[in-house]
Amino acid sequence: HISNSVNPAKLKSHRQRWNVRPSEMSKKTLNPIRAIVDGMKLTPNPEKPMIALSIGDPTVFGNLPTDDTVLQAMKEAIDSHKYNGYAPSVGYQKSREAVSNFYSCPEAPLEGKDVILTSGCSQAIELAISVLCNPGDNILVPRPGFSLYKTLAVSMGIQVKHYNLLPEKSWEIDLQHLESLIDDKTACLIVNNPSNPCGSVFTKDHQHKILAVASRNCIPILADEIYGDMVFPGCDFQPLAPLSSDVPILSCGGLAKCWLVPGWRMGWILIHDHNDIFGTGIREGLVKLSQRILGPCTVVQGALESILNDTPPEFYQGTISFLKSNSEICFSELSTVPGLNPVMPTGAMYIMVGIEMEHFPDFQNDVEFTERLVTEQSVFCLPATAFEYPDFFRIVVTVPEEMMIEACIRIREFCARHYRPRSQDSHDLDQ
Amino acid sequence: HISNSVNPAKLKSHRQRWNVRPSEMSKKTLNPIRAIVDGMKLTPNPEKPMIALSIGDPTVFGNLPTDDTVLQAMKEAIDSHKYNGYAPSVGYQKSREAVSNFYSCPEAPLEGKDVILTSGCSQAIELAISVLCNPGDNILVPRPGFSLYKTLAVSMGIQVKHYNLLPEKSWEIDLQHLESLIDDKTACLIVNNPSNPCGSVFTKDHQHKILAVASRNCIPILADEIYGDMVFPGCDFQPLAPLSSDVPILSCGGLAKCWLVPGWRMGWILIHDHNDIFGTGIREGLVKLSQRILGPCTVVQGALESILNDTPPEFYQGTISFLKSNSEICFSELSTVPGLNPVMPTGAMYIMVGIEMEHFPDFQNDVEFTERLVTEQSVFCLPATAFEYPDFFRIVVTVPEEMMIEACIRIREFCARHYRPRSQDSHDLDQ
Repeated sequence: HISNSVNPAKLKSHRQRWNVRPSEMSKKTLNPIRAIVDGMKLTPNPEKPMIALSIGDPTVFGNLPTDDTVLQAMKEAIDSHKYNGYAPSVGYQKSREAVSNFYSCPEAPLEGKDVILTSGCSQAIELAISVLCNPGDNILVPRPGFSLYKTLAVSMGIQVKHYNLLPEKSWEIDLQHLESLIDDKTACLIVNNPSNPCGSVFTKDHQHKILAVASRNCIPILADEIYGDMVFPGCDFQPLAPLSSDVPILSCGGLAKCWLVPGWRMGWILIHDHNDIFGTGIREGLVKLSQRILGPCTVVQGALESILNDTPPEFYQGTISFLKSNSEICFSELSTVPGLNPVMPTGAMYIMVGIEMEHFPDFQNDVEFTERLVTEQSVFCLPATAFEYPDFFRIVVTVPEEMMIEACIRIREFCARHYRPRSQDSHDLDQ
Repeated sequence: HISNSVNPAKLKSHRQRWNVRPSEMSKKTLNPIRAIVDGMKLTPNPEKPMIALSIGDPTVFGNLPTDDTVLQAMKEAIDSHKYNGYAPSVGYQKSREAVSNFYSCPEAPLEGKDVILTSGCSQAIELAISVLCNPGDNILVPRPGFSLYKTLAVSMGIQVKHYNLLPEKSWEIDLQHLESLIDDKTACLIVNNPSNPCGSVFTKDHQHKILAVASRNCIPILADEIYGDMVFPGCDFQPLAPLSSDVPILSCGGLAKCWLVPGWRMGWILIHDHNDIFGTGIREGLVKLSQRILGPCTVVQGALESILNDTPPEFYQGTISFLKSNSEICFSELSTVPGLNPVMPTGAMYIMVGIEMEHFPDFQNDVEFTERLVTEQSVFCLPATAFEYPDFFRIVVTVPEEMMIEACIRIREFCARHYRPRSQDSHDLDQ
């Protein structure tokens, strides 16, 4: 009562009870994969050991270790005692230069200043979206596509418009559909090549056409090229930037996939701006945003030059041959399963498999299909609803070969049990 | 013209020229230290080697190496081949438990689920602010205080209100001023103890009073305790959470300071919620937000248990004695310099020094004072304007002892040259 008479103004604002609520941003940060997987009843068949073909982490089975060079580089960085302090928030100059040297080419030259080191490719994508887009803007993302784009954008109040990929054209972009989505609030086009979840790799010709759409409409590109160079023999990965004459590009990448160390959280943004369209504004914006959490672990930064320069070519080739071989096994097994339509990949570490749902009346959709595949066969694949693409599922091809073969046998058994000829087909038979 | 007739609607939205601008958020992400330092003319005196007392990084001079146990733990984590894949976005359960075991106490018990591992303490603070505050809310931050709070808040559209610390009371909080700032949009009180830039450590009694303010007004606390346990012998660090009976607290910390590896970007949030006021909402919000960039480097996570449990007590004690000894040298040297008023710290690694500006008419403010200190004496201290506290400067006491002594001699020389008795004093002399 004393304080009441002394300072009535203050009492007015005095909160009377606890009411701590999570922020709107945290509520808007939705991870569709988690939401879908957490909603599934994933009880494996106790008689069959579980095979998880769901996790986009090449390290989980131990069959794809990183190269000793990579580990050695880390230990040398530790022993040097030089990488314990703060680095600049965009990374050590020497480490940035190691990345620019690795990716520079005559058509798209890079210097250290064009590289921002980040805490994994996720932060690279976050920074790129953050610097290009304002709340109320929209971005164009592939469908099917990696869910992080939407998670990040929606949490920032940025609208997401999905452009279609065409499975019958090796998952090329439906360019007409893409262009029809562009409006004056379109701040960025995200191109993911090689693709998660499709395992597809765009031709040079197709990428020229994508650039033409961006150029005509003056839309900068965020190129998620984290699976760059992870393409099968006989297929070439073509980075987008060297093909561009005017479109400014933020290319996001990192150590995660090609070097098989996703947990180390070493990513980067390569700033390609041949026509000075980003100017200093976007560069300064990226530097400012990087100061919020101060970049990736300095030990990994210290090891970066040696990791990029000294890892033997045989290491990358070994990974790629394995992925190709496993993909071929999986594709050839599943392409003879009635009701399934796998699409052969040419890169990354995924196969998308179409489900002819009309032949599987036991299940409403891809989520139920994959849920029951766990219950009956202890095989878990991600339903492609997680990538905004129902009636498909995604298989990760990094598992050991025996497991891949066993998984395919079980999927075949599962499909055989649940496959029903279409009523149309039945009619045909009746006639 | 053909496309015009085919699809006039599309042409309307067709952007006619490039206009890529950095986002509002990136423009609002302001680092006052950078802004001030970049605006200073820092040309050292060529006749004197530069001594930088400005950088809050204990590793830069090589005199404060981390312990071998810490480096060994990292190398073992690398050799185990177990820490290359993705960890959960909030960290490995085992690593979270290592942190909870290290900090748990009977008055504030912690389990693994109460720990979120982050990419440095910066990301811990970012996540804590992000989950507690919405645009339009305000947060209460100390003045003088670490600039990151404001940088993060302003970039998110959150208003910052500064409460005063009192140099004459060992930088305790002006509690009346603090409470007067609270209104119904106040979402969070940030308490930084031990303090950067003050080097002060709150008593238990003072912290009870801070908690009483928070409790009366139902305001949750973000406790930035990154310098916890970095307190001088004879002074006890008291974490805030064990003193709280109701106020929910997110305590932010990390390996950076006590273990002398700030570049490794290993931080954490300890969730203290004895009265279930945060409930599941804040916890789930933190988990969701952590999924944006997927946590800290897994190698450091793998090493964490050993780092926390096996680092010998002598290591911490060695660091602390050094910091205390250097602080005492600096304090006793500068407290006899006319015109300067250093405040003796009891922890962290900083001393704040007040400048009696009226005695230094050559300079407008602390920025000019410290700028000229570089020009004439090649000694660089951060002007405390960078901490919203003009007419002070901050000295980092992690430099080798000889450099600290030499720096103090030069500061004394500088002050002697520019010190002028006040006109009042002159009058006294005249009479």
